Amino acid sequence: MRVSFDELKKLLKAIMIRFSFDERKAEVCADIFASNSRDGVYSHGLNRFPVFIDYVRKGLIHPNGELSLVKKYGQVEVYDGQTGPGMYNASVCTSRAVILAKENGIGCVTVRNNNHWMRGGTYGWQAADAGCIAICFTNAIAGMPPWGGKDARLGNNPLVIAVPRKEGNLVLDMAMSQYSYGKMQEYEWSKQPLPFAGGFDESGNLSHDPAMIRRLKTALPIGFWKGSGLAFMLDIVLTALGGGKSTAEITGSGNEIGLSQTFICIYQQDLHQALTEKIIEFTKTSTRTNRDSPVRYPGENTLATRIKNMREGIPVNQETWEAVKKMME
Amino acid sequence: MRVSFDELKKLLKAIMIRFSFDERKAEVCADIFASNSRDGVYSHGLNRFPVFIDYVRKGLIHPNGELSLVKKYGQVEVYDGQTGPGMYNASVCTSRAVILAKENGIGCVTVRNNNHWMRGGTYGWQAADAGCIAICFTNAIAGMPPWGGKDARLGNNPLVIAVPRKEGNLVLDMAMSQYSYGKMQEYEWSKQPLPFAGGFDESGNLSHDPAMIRRLKTALPIGFWKGSGLAFMLDIVLTALGGGKSTAEITGSGNEIGLSQTFICIYQQDLHQALTEKIIEFTKTSTRTNRDSPVRYPGENTLATRIKNMREGIPVNQETWEAVKKMME
Repeated sequence: MRVSFDELKKLLKAIMIRFSFDERKAEVCADIFASNSRDGVYSHGLNRFPVFIDYVRKGLIHPNGELSLVKKYGQVEVYDGQTGPGMYNASVCTSRAVILAKENGIGCVTVRNNNHWMRGGTYGWQAADAGCIAICFTNAIAGMPPWGGKDARLGNNPLVIAVPRKEGNLVLDMAMSQYSYGKMQEYEWSKQPLPFAGGFDESGNLSHDPAMIRRLKTALPIGFWKGSGLAFMLDIVLTALGGGKSTAEITGSGNEIGLSQTFICIYQQDLHQALTEKIIEFTKTSTRTNRDSPVRYPGENTLATRIKNMREGIPVNQETWEAVKKMME
Repeated sequence: MRVSFDELKKLLKAIMIRFSFDERKAEVCADIFASNSRDGVYSHGLNRFPVFIDYVRKGLIHPNGELSLVKKYGQVEVYDGQTGPGMYNASVCTSRAVILAKENGIGCVTVRNNNHWMRGGTYGWQAADAGCIAICFTNAIAGMPPWGGKDARLGNNPLVIAVPRKEGNLVLDMAMSQYSYGKMQEYEWSKQPLPFAGGFDESGNLSHDPAMIRRLKTALPIGFWKGSGLAFMLDIVLTALGGGKSTAEITGSGNEIGLSQTFICIYQQDLHQALTEKIIEFTKTSTRTNRDSPVRYPGENTLATRIKNMREGIPVNQETWEAVKKMME
């Protein structure tokens, strides 16, 4: 079944208000959840909402946790998220980085002790819509072994890079694991092997078996040693800047809460869009491997899905939809 | 054979002065070439020097090309490299980004119309030695197909992330291709297949054959669609900020010259080194896949090689060494 964006957002907002979120936080969070579903990132939209509310119930997410400034040096600021709603805090941090960038060319905001920001792309789109280039990243609970090791020690630590563009922003939103755990679960449930190796078996050999990889928490870093190094360094930068919990400490706590995130925004009046168009054009002239699958730029599918879902309604799992509606009863 | 760092640097500097570099530029460039060999990055040290001088001879690198400021908005500056020596310009841009960061927390310097910076790690080490976190990247001539395409449209666009650390900086220096063309050449010459798929064959299937991949220019982006997206976005950011040549235009020109590079430095007095140490410690506790190969942090091997090569001398290919010495005759 499909529901409209407004209907979805309205329901989620009402539930959040019922769970003690103030009007402003409920508005922003509901908008982000609904937008994630609208953009086709179903894993971090409505489908994730019950887990989010469960964390609120358990006291792991504090509806009234407010960002507080820890330190400021010039264009670099650090906040404590007070384990408030992660996507709300991340959105405020993005706005702040945009302001710093517009004032002085570039700004960097780090938040520690925050919760999961859901879909990283949210903040890339937000910054790009505000006219800024953005580089954002978060840490996460360990789910990948470092290169040369067998046990999970690295988070998938998503990285977002966004550049404004009139005809549709360019937004890359990528975790450091070849497949997300959510994607591997889909393969497991449909009893399909992964199309490419997605992790390791007990002996450290590459595996296409989603069930085994999920059980062992041995997701494969993209590019083997390279994604391992990149995930490690993002966690180091986050922790060095924010002084908050690293993947080590998050993993030790057993819950994926109290995360660290950094938002770098850059503003320049002229972003040379004509040159950007040439890059897109050049990239798309590569002969297709599969005649029916065009080469796409990061963000192209998102925009197409958004337009379709705004027109036709957002596809929702009926069971989930009914279960979430019950939260209002 | 092995030569000392000082001997290597002295020779390269003398040759550069002979090729019309002024004393300061020759000093910096020779130091970078010699340091790259010293740190074990032989492909971008002495071994690359003859190609560098060949480019000077052909007028592709201008010994006296001076950086000139194109625009400045707050902490963001753009320079034109006037096709001067790439590693010199990159080093000056790094110094400038460090100054901006120390003044105001963060600085971003982009150079367009520069030449190859050789080893990206150079600028990560430089910034970290100066107490800054650094994120630097460059574009390059096309050598990888975008995901879904068969023809090279993306540069390997190396990304560097560095964080200062007393016991040895953390420095990641990674290109977006699974293997560099230099590394694939080594496998080809020793008639070995690549240990992991490193590119595509004519039909777009994954291949371990270094000769074919080199011929077709179909190096594999790390993580397939992910590295493809990341390489694309780095080129977009570089071009949007600098207004210089993108991979499209570099590739069109036929020579890997006139590149774009961005250097972001961040300064904070307290980088929470105790927390950084915990991350390293936690990562290293992952059970080893191979008992004799410890899990290493990015930069760990570099530092070990540096110490060894400073003590024992830098290994050089005798033929290359003699050929370079002949440049003084």
